[in-house]
Amino acid sequence: MNRIITIGREFGSGGRELGKRLSELLGYAYYDKEIIAEIAKRTQLAESYVQQIIEQKNGFFFPINVGRTLHPAAHASAGEYVMKQYATVYAEQANVLREMSEKSDCIIVGRCADYILREKKPLRLFVYADIDSRIERCKQKGYEGEALDDKKLRREILRVDKNRAKYYEYYTGRTWGDHSNYDLCINTSRISVKECAQMLSHMLSTESVHQ
Amino acid sequence: MNRIITIGREFGSGGRELGKRLSELLGYAYYDKEIIAEIAKRTQLAESYVQQIIEQKNGFFFPINVGRTLHPAAHASAGEYVMKQYATVYAEQANVLREMSEKSDCIIVGRCADYILREKKPLRLFVYADIDSRIERCKQKGYEGEALDDKKLRREILRVDKNRAKYYEYYTGRTWGDHSNYDLCINTSRISVKECAQMLSHMLSTESVHQ
Repeated sequence: MNRIITIGREFGSGGRELGKRLSELLGYAYYDKEIIAEIAKRTQLAESYVQQIIEQKNGFFFPINVGRTLHPAAHASAGEYVMKQYATVYAEQANVLREMSEKSDCIIVGRCADYILREKKPLRLFVYADIDSRIERCKQKGYEGEALDDKKLRREILRVDKNRAKYYEYYTGRTWGDHSNYDLCINTSRISVKECAQMLSHMLSTESVHQ
Repeated sequence: MNRIITIGREFGSGGRELGKRLSELLGYAYYDKEIIAEIAKRTQLAESYVQQIIEQKNGFFFPINVGRTLHPAAHASAGEYVMKQYATVYAEQANVLREMSEKSDCIIVGRCADYILREKKPLRLFVYADIDSRIERCKQKGYEGEALDDKKLRREILRVDKNRAKYYEYYTGRTWGDHSNYDLCINTSRISVKECAQMLSHMLSTESVHQ
């Protein structure tokens, strides 16, 4: 069975960077935005639309709510259609993740991968950081290209987290960020992403941690 | 400033063992039951009584409850006396921890040390494991010397955790086990205590992780 590492993360805490570094150090495939492209291809939906659904950037709408209450054209058939699209995208996401995990050793960021691939017993990481570090990281990465002030950035960061949590909880029935759903939770305000990657690759170069 | 590692842990997950291993690998002092002995000496209370208060083995009674409601001889002066003892023990515990942390690099298990020593910016670990691993560990360690069946052991393990959580929350105002209160949370059902100790000592042999 291939080795799989999944990375759940608070927004702005460096989860993606950790995934990329681990991929370089360990030689595992790294899957992130490629997943969206693949889902779009299979569902014949636009990539941007798929991204909106699974990244919930504009707010997580429980499919049933979108169908019944919040959808602008809130009538039965439009609602049902949207609900079907959500279900289709999530189902394709699960298929794509399973296939990727069967191709090779891999690292997957987000996507409820820790849950979807749970029978393959991935090493499940969760990455977080204090809010000031996260604001700083977002500024450095030029988040959304705008010059958001710290107060607005803070609000945006917390909003994205909230949506991630709702999405995760809706699809998995579990609590996002609860340590019991992960094998290692790392505070990158204290242990830098670079140090964390080195520490983990050192540990994983022995056979025993992957079951 | 000395290097400090604090270890919070679910009962039966190997937190003590991790502390001892790290102490051997890193050469830091290791403080656990020694703290109880020191508090007993300073407060002139019996060690077993101090242990009962700070380990809450028989249930965590909020000092105010013990004073007013649950104490068998529930009248004002007895209640106030007990409340004073709790406060004295907790205050001495804080003093002892601070002094130990000023003596040398050290590892401290439990005792709300992550909170009490927060200004010294310790590396705060939290150790946990799935319930079956914890039952197994307790059986191997001969917990309480009795042959408890799995069902009773499970109940006992969860009871001890519940008391730890209440104690921690009462004295720190924080949520026990919440990742935001720690720098690294490790699932020892997945990453053995031995591997974890090696991984951490490798990481800590560079200067940067301790601030």
